Amino acid sequence: MGKLTVVGIGPGDYDNMTVRADRALRECQVIVGYHVYVDLVRKRYPDREFLTTPMTREADRCRMALEEADKGKDVVMVCSGDSGIYGMAGLVYQLRGEREEPEISVIPGLTAACSGAALLGAPLTHDFAVVSLSDRLTSWEKIEKRLTAAAEADLSIVLYNPASRGRPDYLQRACDILLRTLPPDRPCGVARSIGREGEGRVILPLERLRDFEADMFCTVFIGNGQTEVIGDRLVTPRGYRDV
Amino acid sequence: MGKLTVVGIGPGDYDNMTVRADRALRECQVIVGYHVYVDLVRKRYPDREFLTTPMTREADRCRMALEEADKGKDVVMVCSGDSGIYGMAGLVYQLRGEREEPEISVIPGLTAACSGAALLGAPLTHDFAVVSLSDRLTSWEKIEKRLTAAAEADLSIVLYNPASRGRPDYLQRACDILLRTLPPDRPCGVARSIGREGEGRVILPLERLRDFEADMFCTVFIGNGQTEVIGDRLVTPRGYRDV
Repeated sequence: MGKLTVVGIGPGDYDNMTVRADRALRECQVIVGYHVYVDLVRKRYPDREFLTTPMTREADRCRMALEEADKGKDVVMVCSGDSGIYGMAGLVYQLRGEREEPEISVIPGLTAACSGAALLGAPLTHDFAVVSLSDRLTSWEKIEKRLTAAAEADLSIVLYNPASRGRPDYLQRACDILLRTLPPDRPCGVARSIGREGEGRVILPLERLRDFEADMFCTVFIGNGQTEVIGDRLVTPRGYRDV
Repeated sequence: MGKLTVVGIGPGDYDNMTVRADRALRECQVIVGYHVYVDLVRKRYPDREFLTTPMTREADRCRMALEEADKGKDVVMVCSGDSGIYGMAGLVYQLRGEREEPEISVIPGLTAACSGAALLGAPLTHDFAVVSLSDRLTSWEKIEKRLTAAAEADLSIVLYNPASRGRPDYLQRACDILLRTLPPDRPCGVARSIGREGEGRVILPLERLRDFEADMFCTVFIGNGQTEVIGDRLVTPRGYRDV
């Protein structure tokens, strides 16, 4: 019986992978994933079997990975960022159900909240919420409720999937909701293409974030009431009294 | 002029460090940090200068690191978990202020939300909030407000610092607040000593989490309305329709 390891490869470059993720990729026989993520690792780990599915076929992808492991192969399913945070780990457990085989293990990776925050400075030194603006699997009403709750509770907020071709105005809609609670000059930041070609950061107030043209390679950070811009970095102080 | 690199070493074992964090530790001259974290890396990176301060002297530790870099040394400040999420990156930027030197860079690491979730299964496949129960730098009223907001918005919740010797009943207090909104059978989990000796996981309903004896080595996960226990894992489905 083979095993299935769900691996978070981090933002995409080798440097931001963990030692454990690298080892799992080196030791496996089959690599399964969304084709864009598989392409990120294909060169470094050649001579393996690569199996890919398109973006919206997540369940097919997980079934394929479980079947390969059932055949006796050591399979890695790659996820960008973390394997659990908006990743495939949950779906793999769901599809295996109450069976005990194949063995599943989950190797965590750097999610964009960590890697994007480091690129921008240190916006998440205190309590925060992570909310995806994709309404493919969640109603917009629920997303709206979560944004408002986070803003009212003075949590820093990280927005995943702020926009895509089919949802070009979702970041604007989210900002309009946040502006009901937060001031227009609240410091915010955008981390783009973290760890990949074209990596960059933008720091700007909430009222200008509203008109920022985000795409699916962006992760957006909304500061809390203490967040400030220091030099060219976005920083949330934790409140140490001796500073 | 030297440089200061703030490095998140992840939960503590070498395997969960990123390639980039490992390289920064190999290439630096001075390693600064809270003594427990410095001890986690001391053996693997010997022949360096090690500087430590006690737990509550965060600002002193950061000033020490900046001073060593000012002297021309390449300094790494180690943080457990991520360097930004409840880490020292923000304080380092604050203390350097508007100066441009020494150069500061931040290398992210696996925060306990990622590594603990992987140990428990996949409780964070959807939107979530991270809240620390330590009231050393935040009022308990604010913590209480954040817990309630997160529960009402159906966010999964990760509790950092759920208890310590000085705050033995804080997890109980937090559960009592959550139980005003969430049902007693809401699936929860505790990840303990992630990546270190004594690593373990416990899955239990919220009403029993209330009486769990957590310590400072625990990270606590509260499921959202969809979270379920599958086999011996805590899993939050994302809502794929074809499962």
